[in-house]
Amino acid sequence: MPHIDFKNDLPGIRGAMAYRPETAAPLSELAEILLRDDEGLSRLDRELIATHVSYLNDCFYCHHSHGEIACIYSGGDRELINQVRNDYTNANITDKLKALLAIAAKVQQSGKAVSSTDIENAKQAGASDRDIHDTVLIAAAFCMFNRYVDGLATIAPTDMSTYPLRAKQVAEKGYGSHVYSSAQPVAEEKL
Amino acid sequence: MPHIDFKNDLPGIRGAMAYRPETAAPLSELAEILLRDDEGLSRLDRELIATHVSYLNDCFYCHHSHGEIACIYSGGDRELINQVRNDYTNANITDKLKALLAIAAKVQQSGKAVSSTDIENAKQAGASDRDIHDTVLIAAAFCMFNRYVDGLATIAPTDMSTYPLRAKQVAEKGYGSHVYSSAQPVAEEKL
Repeated sequence: MPHIDFKNDLPGIRGAMAYRPETAAPLSELAEILLRDDEGLSRLDRELIATHVSYLNDCFYCHHSHGEIACIYSGGDRELINQVRNDYTNANITDKLKALLAIAAKVQQSGKAVSSTDIENAKQAGASDRDIHDTVLIAAAFCMFNRYVDGLATIAPTDMSTYPLRAKQVAEKGYGSHVYSSAQPVAEEKL
Repeated sequence: MPHIDFKNDLPGIRGAMAYRPETAAPLSELAEILLRDDEGLSRLDRELIATHVSYLNDCFYCHHSHGEIACIYSGGDRELINQVRNDYTNANITDKLKALLAIAAKVQQSGKAVSSTDIENAKQAGASDRDIHDTVLIAAAFCMFNRYVDGLATIAPTDMSTYPLRAKQVAEKGYGSHVYSSAQPVAEEKL
């Protein structure tokens, strides 16, 4: 049960966002830009970074939600997503993405944990300054989103069939606040 | 030296925000709503929560920047700000704010660290659901801002006289992206 009365029964971050639409708007906009920008990192890369950081933060709702979105972008390769969650160094991904995931994992611990060597490794593997910027900010943003979701004890659905359905909506429509902050208790919106 | 070339020499988060104005806009808007909303928590309360979390995250730039803004709102009580940084339980603040700072400190560790007892203590001390929501999101947001600032190794001025000057600008004008993302290398903007 959530720590406060959201006055809605939406799951995960959506319950908190519907409760406080003023803050939901910039949060949605941030997710939209960071996770759906097509310059540099792909949408799959971006969702994999979000999934890995959410997994490290042990945020059930977020790592399943974003893992399923990544799964759609990967063409349904659930095994890849699972491996990136907890064993990305052996996953079938580029050396560049491995180096960026290493930076993201450092950011999850602390900003100060990121070393010049981590940055140099990413650059050697082909990462641009913008790729590094976006990786650091995606990782940092999920240190926020994960804490927002779990710090208020939002509802994480245990029916795992809901996550792919919701992921399909996000993959198609994006993270707009019209999607996230709706408090409409219609069935589709509860996914 | 920053880990990437920001193409500007602005300090702290402002260097990163000027580099990527697309993400700066929602980040500024989030700070504006969370730290300058006048309903429920005061601006001083909000900046004290931000300062304490930034101190726990050992983010020099952020805990000094927000500490100075809090100092202005407190009428110049620097001793109070210092005490809230590292010993808030003995500070001259309300029991309600102490209970909310306890929640913020838990969020800094992990969202899951917040217990029902922490929430109950805050409610007993007079905190509303909205106060608790905003406390959790301010604490979570500074876990993002602090990591963004340090994860990219942004420049933290060591000339401490710059922080009160910059704080005055923010206290007067707010966190609008016009303030934050400007890459104009004018002297005043470097504060």
